[in-house]
Amino acid sequence: MTELIHDIDKLRGRVTEYRRGGRSIGLVPTMGALHEGHLSLIRHARNENDRVVVTIFVNPTQYDDPSDLKRYPRTLAADFEKAEESGADLVFHPEAEAIYADDYRFKVIETDFSRELEGAHRDGHFDGVLTVVLKLLNIIQADRAYFGEKDWQQLRLVRDMAAAFFHPTEIISCPTIREADGLALSSRNVHLTPDERTLAPEFHRVLSSRSTAREMEQQLVDAGFAVDYVEQCGDRILGAVRIGKLRLIDNVQL
Amino acid sequence: MTELIHDIDKLRGRVTEYRRGGRSIGLVPTMGALHEGHLSLIRHARNENDRVVVTIFVNPTQYDDPSDLKRYPRTLAADFEKAEESGADLVFHPEAEAIYADDYRFKVIETDFSRELEGAHRDGHFDGVLTVVLKLLNIIQADRAYFGEKDWQQLRLVRDMAAAFFHPTEIISCPTIREADGLALSSRNVHLTPDERTLAPEFHRVLSSRSTAREMEQQLVDAGFAVDYVEQCGDRILGAVRIGKLRLIDNVQL
Repeated sequence: MTELIHDIDKLRGRVTEYRRGGRSIGLVPTMGALHEGHLSLIRHARNENDRVVVTIFVNPTQYDDPSDLKRYPRTLAADFEKAEESGADLVFHPEAEAIYADDYRFKVIETDFSRELEGAHRDGHFDGVLTVVLKLLNIIQADRAYFGEKDWQQLRLVRDMAAAFFHPTEIISCPTIREADGLALSSRNVHLTPDERTLAPEFHRVLSSRSTAREMEQQLVDAGFAVDYVEQCGDRILGAVRIGKLRLIDNVQL
Repeated sequence: MTELIHDIDKLRGRVTEYRRGGRSIGLVPTMGALHEGHLSLIRHARNENDRVVVTIFVNPTQYDDPSDLKRYPRTLAADFEKAEESGADLVFHPEAEAIYADDYRFKVIETDFSRELEGAHRDGHFDGVLTVVLKLLNIIQADRAYFGEKDWQQLRLVRDMAAAFFHPTEIISCPTIREADGLALSSRNVHLTPDERTLAPEFHRVLSSRSTAREMEQQLVDAGFAVDYVEQCGDRILGAVRIGKLRLIDNVQL
């Protein structure tokens, strides 16, 4: 029986019970609108821990665009069912007012990598991400927390933050899940029109083409995308493009 | 037998052993140069916990003035002895390079109260304080951490930070320890010349005089202090003054 908890104190009480029994805890933080990418994280957590906590929280502080926040799909009943089928013991769905009882006076910031790539296009985005992740890590006190490689810059920042703050939770990454045509799963994909959906997989195809970043950028523009960036970062190519009102990000290993 | 540990991983191993045995841990974070104020914190921790960890770390990121950092007294051998006599089980004395292996890329900041009072006079001070405290809280995983009321703004920010981030460690405050003439104990007092030492207790006497903040400011100037601020904050009067090169802070309850 999967449990749904909204209240932070109640959640902490349940987590304390888990720990008292010596059970390991896996955490999968999500913003809901769960797709196969999230479910693969939950299954990973299920395999490696005695208890699995899935959080569903659309984090307002990581949006610089209020209309994007408003448009983000909210599907709690369906999410709960999917989380349950994938092996979650507990779904935690807190209120923004409870998570930000301090009115976001306290933040975690990163002064270097978080300002590049996504950070250069979404003001304050990673401050919001890092802050909410640290709050969730502290509330759930998990042994392991699972993040997808799709949001590669986020994954690296979260991992570095946990190391910088000596957080006891281990950060574990899982591969990006894709449609058969290569499009990375994303909660935002539901907003693609049929024409846009036909174009979208070109993004991943180009990123996988082993051209230079500049050539990829040109190929993407030629295909019909507006390109925010295509950049090599270590052994990865990371990109962000726009189709109509929608923004897609993806990355592949070189 | 009190143990001295420099290495973070070794410390974490020891803490894990403490916890595995179900023992409670009290943390007293200090910058060394221990005086009776610190020792009262250690004794408090001793009374309330099975194990007491004292950290001695002169935190470079909370100094905006490099000469102040350089001048800060470093007396590890004497500190160790005092910590032992006061009941510490473990003294943790890490290297700055290990605490800031991330080159201080990741910070905790507070965007409101930390900019006032001390924060208005010491650029970035509380960013450094909050960041190092969060690191130490995570490394030591204490049940309780002890802070003195002498640094009242720091205490309030640390307590609010722990609440904002849902940190499992409870923040406990202890009263300011004073000389017989009222001067609040501070590691910096050793730098007072005999004349300055004679003047110094006037600071506390004026703060306790139940005048208005503006009147106190005038009284302090008349007595020979340079005044950074005297301000009421809730039910407290907080002040910072300079005598020669030295800066003193204090606060009293109204």
